[in-house]
Amino acid sequence: MKTIDINADLGESFGAFKIGNDAAMLPLVTSANVACGFHASDPETLVHTIDLVKQNNVTLGCHPGYRDLEGFGRRDMSLSYKEVYALVKYQIAAVDGLARSVGVKMKYVKPHGALYNKAEVCKKTRQAIVDSIYDYDESLYVMGMSMGQLVKCAEDKGLGTIHEVFLDRAYNDDGTLVSRNSEGAMIKDAREAAARLEEMIEVGSVTTITGNKIPIKVDSVCVHGDTEGAVQFLKDVFKELKTKNYQFQSVVN
Amino acid sequence: MKTIDINADLGESFGAFKIGNDAAMLPLVTSANVACGFHASDPETLVHTIDLVKQNNVTLGCHPGYRDLEGFGRRDMSLSYKEVYALVKYQIAAVDGLARSVGVKMKYVKPHGALYNKAEVCKKTRQAIVDSIYDYDESLYVMGMSMGQLVKCAEDKGLGTIHEVFLDRAYNDDGTLVSRNSEGAMIKDAREAAARLEEMIEVGSVTTITGNKIPIKVDSVCVHGDTEGAVQFLKDVFKELKTKNYQFQSVVN
Amino acid sequence: MKTIDINADLGESFGAFKIGNDAAMLPLVTSANVACGFHASDPETLVHTIDLVKQNNVTLGCHPGYRDLEGFGRRDMSLSYKEVYALVKYQIAAVDGLARSVGVKMKYVKPHGALYNKAEVCKKTRQAIVDSIYDYDESLYVMGMSMGQLVKCAEDKGLGTIHEVFLDRAYNDDGTLVSRNSEGAMIKDAREAAARLEEMIEVGSVTTITGNKIPIKVDSVCVHGDTEGAVQFLKDVFKELKTKNYQFQSVVN
Amino acid sequence: MKTIDINADLGESFGAFKIGNDAAMLPLVTSANVACGFHASDPETLVHTIDLVKQNNVTLGCHPGYRDLEGFGRRDMSLSYKEVYALVKYQIAAVDGLARSVGVKMKYVKPHGALYNKAEVCKKTRQAIVDSIYDYDESLYVMGMSMGQLVKCAEDKGLGTIHEVFLDRAYNDDGTLVSRNSEGAMIKDAREAAARLEEMIEVGSVTTITGNKIPIKVDSVCVHGDTEGAVQFLKDVFKELKTKNYQFQSVVN
Repeated sequence: MKTIDINADLGESFGAFKIGNDAAMLPLVTSANVACGFHASDPETLVHTIDLVKQNNVTLGCHPGYRDLEGFGRRDMSLSYKEVYALVKYQIAAVDGLARSVGVKMKYVKPHGALYNKAEVCKKTRQAIVDSIYDYDESLYVMGMSMGQLVKCAEDKGLGTIHEVFLDRAYNDDGTLVSRNSEGAMIKDAREAAARLEEMIEVGSVTTITGNKIPIKVDSVCVHGDTEGAVQFLKDVFKELKTKNYQFQSVVN
Repeated sequence: MKTIDINADLGESFGAFKIGNDAAMLPLVTSANVACGFHASDPETLVHTIDLVKQNNVTLGCHPGYRDLEGFGRRDMSLSYKEVYALVKYQIAAVDGLARSVGVKMKYVKPHGALYNKAEVCKKTRQAIVDSIYDYDESLYVMGMSMGQLVKCAEDKGLGTIHEVFLDRAYNDDGTLVSRNSEGAMIKDAREAAARLEEMIEVGSVTTITGNKIPIKVDSVCVHGDTEGAVQFLKDVFKELKTKNYQFQSVVN
Repeated sequence: MKTIDINADLGESFGAFKIGNDAAMLPLVTSANVACGFHASDPETLVHTIDLVKQNNVTLGCHPGYRDLEGFGRRDMSLSYKEVYALVKYQIAAVDGLARSVGVKMKYVKPHGALYNKAEVCKKTRQAIVDSIYDYDESLYVMGMSMGQLVKCAEDKGLGTIHEVFLDRAYNDDGTLVSRNSEGAMIKDAREAAARLEEMIEVGSVTTITGNKIPIKVDSVCVHGDTEGAVQFLKDVFKELKTKNYQFQSVVN
Repeated sequence: MKTIDINADLGESFGAFKIGNDAAMLPLVTSANVACGFHASDPETLVHTIDLVKQNNVTLGCHPGYRDLEGFGRRDMSLSYKEVYALVKYQIAAVDGLARSVGVKMKYVKPHGALYNKAEVCKKTRQAIVDSIYDYDESLYVMGMSMGQLVKCAEDKGLGTIHEVFLDRAYNDDGTLVSRNSEGAMIKDAREAAARLEEMIEVGSVTTITGNKIPIKVDSVCVHGDTEGAVQFLKDVFKELKTKNYQFQSVVN
């Protein structure tokens, strides 16, 4: 049996401000990256989201971000090692505690947005994230860019890691994603997306925007469900993958 | 040996905004009510404060409040049961997790400011607080107004409780505190404060502002150290209490 | 010519958190109550919303609320006179300044949510709101509950007022709105809504939930466009009103 | 008569979180950079601070910063042109409106902290700041680093500018400040500080940390009063300057 883990960001609403499409996405994913109350979410949303994650038998991960609700954690901020360390540990602790109180084990941590990107290019930031996770609970997995600096740093520390790839995005030759504004950045055809993913999984390589093949590792696949079209695209890709005998299951279940 | 538990609010700074006098207070208290990041404190302050609490061998309690940094959690807010429940559990989880990751066991929860006051007069609010604490960890103690509604609600639920009295405040006949703005609200003489506390502990009663005696229970004594005068007052009271053979020790150590 | 002013809350998004349906509502309203950055909105949203209001030739009003983004300003907060005074003046100043810088004159102030409701029942709160508006700019109008305490307080101060009624809500005998949770609280039939509004305007009375008639004054009509159904309901009501020869125009244009 | 303008950051408290020493500083400065509610301050603090500025006959300037209360606006954030533009205009509008309502004319804008530093190195940021100020009120002055990029950008736009120097800081050869952590970064001797300032004013040059002389322009002198020592240092410097026949007066009074 060939299995694929599908992860998506969930639980990103804030009070009356609703965002995302959790109801449609929960049946489609096997791992849920839930926002922690800093770049998105709030205590009541978290309690509710963790209940939904539990009901849907989805693996729970936490998705800590910068304290920038206005910017949804997508704007880079200059933080010290100590600030990142505390920021991440506080958010892990909050989500983990809420989960344990309803009998759910949080399994992994995936930094969000600008923090995710910063971790790839700033040694101090990724070390703070990794140390924070390690000090909190050594059994937690770190989810990050496939073959990237964050997962490498986590592996050096002795933490389990989840290399993630992106279903609908083109890659540069250096393994980074092609900017959304560039021609060909988005993979829009479901059959193509499924074929690309199959190559990544079976061959361990991805064809870049320039036509080269670079090595890649697939522990999980990141998907988005912001629009109705996105949800349908996912359903189409998954149908395709099922014809290739893939099944969907969390990698750290 | 006669022991007294002394509790105070600590770790209330927010980023560059410093408040309180933790360095002077930590050697004087046996229980620390640390702010959780909503009405005061932030992740880095919490990490630092928990370290200090650990170094000083003080019992750790968490001090959840309304999400009202501007009002320091002192302004009443109209929240639903679900909102209070999630608000409190999130804060408990954050502080508890940060503490456990450095080998410290958080022992009790004391609502802060307006939430503390609301719990005494609003059934829905105190039930949400108590249910939240219970669902998080049944071994946690609830600290509240001596003989008050919050501790009664917690006892009904089966939680351990800590009845707290106030060292420097006069009481009304109904067991509430005399408003700070009223004549005689504050006990300013150290010898008088010590004598009053001794009566509360030994006799189980306190003399109210009208001269009546009402029953009271002393598990812990709440003190404040906002000013230099306040810290000196505490030292004077404690010196007095030591001459009466009291020692200072956490009630849930 | 018989004219009606239609007001609605607009510009309530916060960063990536989108809320409301401004594009559909702007062509339907004659007065826009724009959020000011405390219970909703942010600087960039405000700049954008004021541009839209200008392009659509809609009268600009400001909609100050409590600093409670999580609760969308719908949770009551216990603020002092000074706090309400400063809270309202700051928000008025911000919106007014942004508007003037693009050649738009802000015409009125309507408190939002819990602040609106508090103003009707708390003298200190409504006085703080009115004093704040008066001290900022005596030419501003105050929009509030028809025949209510806020507009009365504003009139006593010498400010212009806008008595507003609700298109889709039933009234109690004391002039307050029937709670949304009660049977018959919402007027769902467009023809009925139009007929009720006509009675309010022409006769100066409204039929309450108990069947009594009470006096009411209509300077403006508050509408909501949260759902697709709501927008269609409005279009239906307006079509009906046009057959009765009403036209739509701001009362303080 | 030789005059010097002295500016300092004021009104930086947030609710119960008190910061700075406004009472001691107001009699010493001629220009007050007041925080606007984003990196520091709140509506009530602003109303109060503007009153104090008025009573002390000090020139009012506004001091907009990033929306990062936790970091006190000292952490760089990646904002778009539109975000900076709106952020700055909103803050200018709020302070200007509060000031006008009590008969005070706000005269200048000085970006705070990380925004001030970013303006020197990021063209998009300084252009957004300058455009925002210009669009709000062409008569406003822009205060920034002497001979720096922000004031140059403002001058190109046609705005008045205030070149500011630092009383207690050493300069690098490129006109930037020596990092606080470096040897010799702080000027601690009052007589030396006065002599350096005199050279800057009379000769138009400053001696850098390496001993070179570079051109500098003095429209205003930035001072800090965070500590008791800092206030005494200022008094000593000012006494010295008075013996050299300098008087203190706002440059845009």
